[in-house]
Amino acid sequence: MLRIGLDVMGGDFAPQAAVQGAVMAVDALGGDSRLVLFGDEKQIRDILREENCPAERFDIVHTSQVIEMGDHPAKAFQQKTDSSIVVGFKYLDAGKIDGFASAGSTGAMMVGSMQAIKPIKGVIRPTISTTIPTVAGGRALLLDVGLNVDCKPEVLEQYGLLGSIYAEAVLGIKNPRVAILNIGEEESKGNIQSKAAHDLMRQSKAYNFVGNVEGSHLFSGKVADVIVCDGFVGNTLLKTCEGLYRINQAMHIGSDSPFWQEMNYEHVGGTPVLGVGASVVVGHGCSSPLAIKNMVLSMERCAQVHLTEKLQQAFK
Amino acid sequence: MLRIGLDVMGGDFAPQAAVQGAVMAVDALGGDSRLVLFGDEKQIRDILREENCPAERFDIVHTSQVIEMGDHPAKAFQQKTDSSIVVGFKYLDAGKIDGFASAGSTGAMMVGSMQAIKPIKGVIRPTISTTIPTVAGGRALLLDVGLNVDCKPEVLEQYGLLGSIYAEAVLGIKNPRVAILNIGEEESKGNIQSKAAHDLMRQSKAYNFVGNVEGSHLFSGKVADVIVCDGFVGNTLLKTCEGLYRINQAMHIGSDSPFWQEMNYEHVGGTPVLGVGASVVVGHGCSSPLAIKNMVLSMERCAQVHLTEKLQQAFK
Repeated sequence: MLRIGLDVMGGDFAPQAAVQGAVMAVDALGGDSRLVLFGDEKQIRDILREENCPAERFDIVHTSQVIEMGDHPAKAFQQKTDSSIVVGFKYLDAGKIDGFASAGSTGAMMVGSMQAIKPIKGVIRPTISTTIPTVAGGRALLLDVGLNVDCKPEVLEQYGLLGSIYAEAVLGIKNPRVAILNIGEEESKGNIQSKAAHDLMRQSKAYNFVGNVEGSHLFSGKVADVIVCDGFVGNTLLKTCEGLYRINQAMHIGSDSPFWQEMNYEHVGGTPVLGVGASVVVGHGCSSPLAIKNMVLSMERCAQVHLTEKLQQAFK
Repeated sequence: MLRIGLDVMGGDFAPQAAVQGAVMAVDALGGDSRLVLFGDEKQIRDILREENCPAERFDIVHTSQVIEMGDHPAKAFQQKTDSSIVVGFKYLDAGKIDGFASAGSTGAMMVGSMQAIKPIKGVIRPTISTTIPTVAGGRALLLDVGLNVDCKPEVLEQYGLLGSIYAEAVLGIKNPRVAILNIGEEESKGNIQSKAAHDLMRQSKAYNFVGNVEGSHLFSGKVADVIVCDGFVGNTLLKTCEGLYRINQAMHIGSDSPFWQEMNYEHVGGTPVLGVGASVVVGHGCSSPLAIKNMVLSMERCAQVHLTEKLQQAFK
C-alpha cells in the first residue's frame, strides 16, 4: 500500500482546487495507492460532498492551521505546529505516508524538506527540477529551477546524478543523456561556473554526460534528457517559457499543438525536491485541480519506483 | 552624408546573401545615406549584375582576404590585414564610414571593436544586445546577450545606462524603464550578483530603474523596456526563444502572429556593440538577405541619431 500525502490547504485556490484535484486523482491512482489529505476536515468534507465524492475514498488528517504565502517560512514551520504542512512532514518523517505534495508555501516546503526530512547523506545541495516537453515527444528534466541560485561546480555535477536517476526511474528514459546548459556546444565555451562544472561532469562515471547543450536545443530533445544549470538560470528560463505559453494562450496560438499544451504547468503538476530522504513535491501556487491531480500522480510514480531509495543508493 | 559600411564576405551565405541584402537595403535607406560594401569586388559586381542592380548605387572597397568562422579571431585580425573586416574597421576608425556591420566572425568583430575602435572612456565592459518583441507591440532591449558571461555588478549597472540611451535614441522610447532580470519581483530576491547589481542600480540617477523583472514578463512589455542580465543568462534566453521560434515554424504555429513573426532574428538584423567609440553591428552567422537588410537599416538608425556621441556624453 502506497500512501500519498496531499496538503489541501496550500495554493491560491485552496482548499477548493486542491480537494477537487484530489477527487480527479483518486480515480487515476493505482489500486494499491491511497490519498491522505491534510487540512481542515470540515471544509474537506463539505467540498467532497459538493463533488459527490465519498469521503471514505480518502484518509483525512485534520489540521487546524495554515502556513500562508506571506508567512516567514522557517518561523511559520516552527510555530504553526498544527498546520497542514508541518503535520504532513511529521507523517512523512514517521513513514506514515510515502510522499508529501503541496501547492502551498514553497519556502515552508523547503524548510520541511531540509529540516524535518534532511538531505540524503552525500548530497551537497538538494534541488528542485521540472520536466519540459520536447518536440521529439517525450519530456526532458531541467534542474535546478530556483532553489540554489548560486551553485558551485560540485553542486552542478551532483545535479547530473540526481537528474539522471530521476529521468531513468520516473520518466523511464534508459541511460539518460545528461548535459550542462551552456552558451556553446564546444567544451571551451561558458562562464567560469559552467566550464568548471563541465570539467567535473566529464570525469564522472556515474552518468552519461554528453557535454554542453545550448538553449536552442532545450526543447528539441536532440541533445539531452537531463539539463543541468543553476537555479537562477533555470528559474529564469522556466518563467520565460511560461510567459510565452501564456502569451500564446491569450492569442489562441498553439492551442491544438501537443507540444505547447505540454508546456502548460498543469500537466507537470509540480517540481520534485530531489536529494532529500523522502518524496516531496512542490506545486505551483496557482495550481488548478488538474495541476493538483498531476502533482499527486507524479508523487505516486516517485513512490512506486522507490526513487528516494535509488537516490540514497547512488550517493552511498 | 551617412556612410554605412557592410562586410559582404561575412556570414554562412556570403557574399551572395550579403550583397542581396545590400540591394534590398539600398532602396530603404534615406536619401542622405550611402552603402559602402567591403569585399571581393568582382564577386560583388557579378552578384549585383544578377540582381539587376547598378553598381553605382554603392561604394565598393575591394578586399582580397576573408576571416573565416574557424579562424582564431585575434590572430586573424592581426594577420589578414586585407580582409573585409580589418579594412572595414580601418575605414571606421578613420571616420571614412559612420558605422560597420558584418554577419561574419563575431570574435573578429569584437577584436575590431575593442582594439581598432576601443571602449568609450568610462565604460568598463562594452556589451552586445538584442531587441525582443513584446505583446504590447513595441520592442524591448535585452543585454548582455553573450559577450560578458561573468559580470561584476558594476558592469550590470552600466548596462542599464547603455541600454537606456539605446532604447531612447534608437527605439524611440521616452524615459525607458530599466530593470534587472531576476527570479522574483521583490528586492530581496536573486543570486549574489543580481542582488548586488540591484542595489547599485537602485541608487543610479542616470536612468529610470524600475527594479526586478521576471522571465515571465520579458515579452509582456508591462514591466521594462530595457532588461539587464549577464551574457550567460542573456545568451541562453535568446537561444531558447530562437529554438521555440524554430519549433513553431516547423509546426506552422504562430505564422500569422505578428508577435511570433517579430521573434524571427531576420527582423532584428543584428546586435549592436554598445560602449565602443563607433557604431558596430554584428549579425547572425546564418543571416538571410532580409536579415542583412535590417542590419543595415538599424546601423543607419544608430548613425542618424548619433548614438555613439550620446553614449560618450553619458559616460563623461
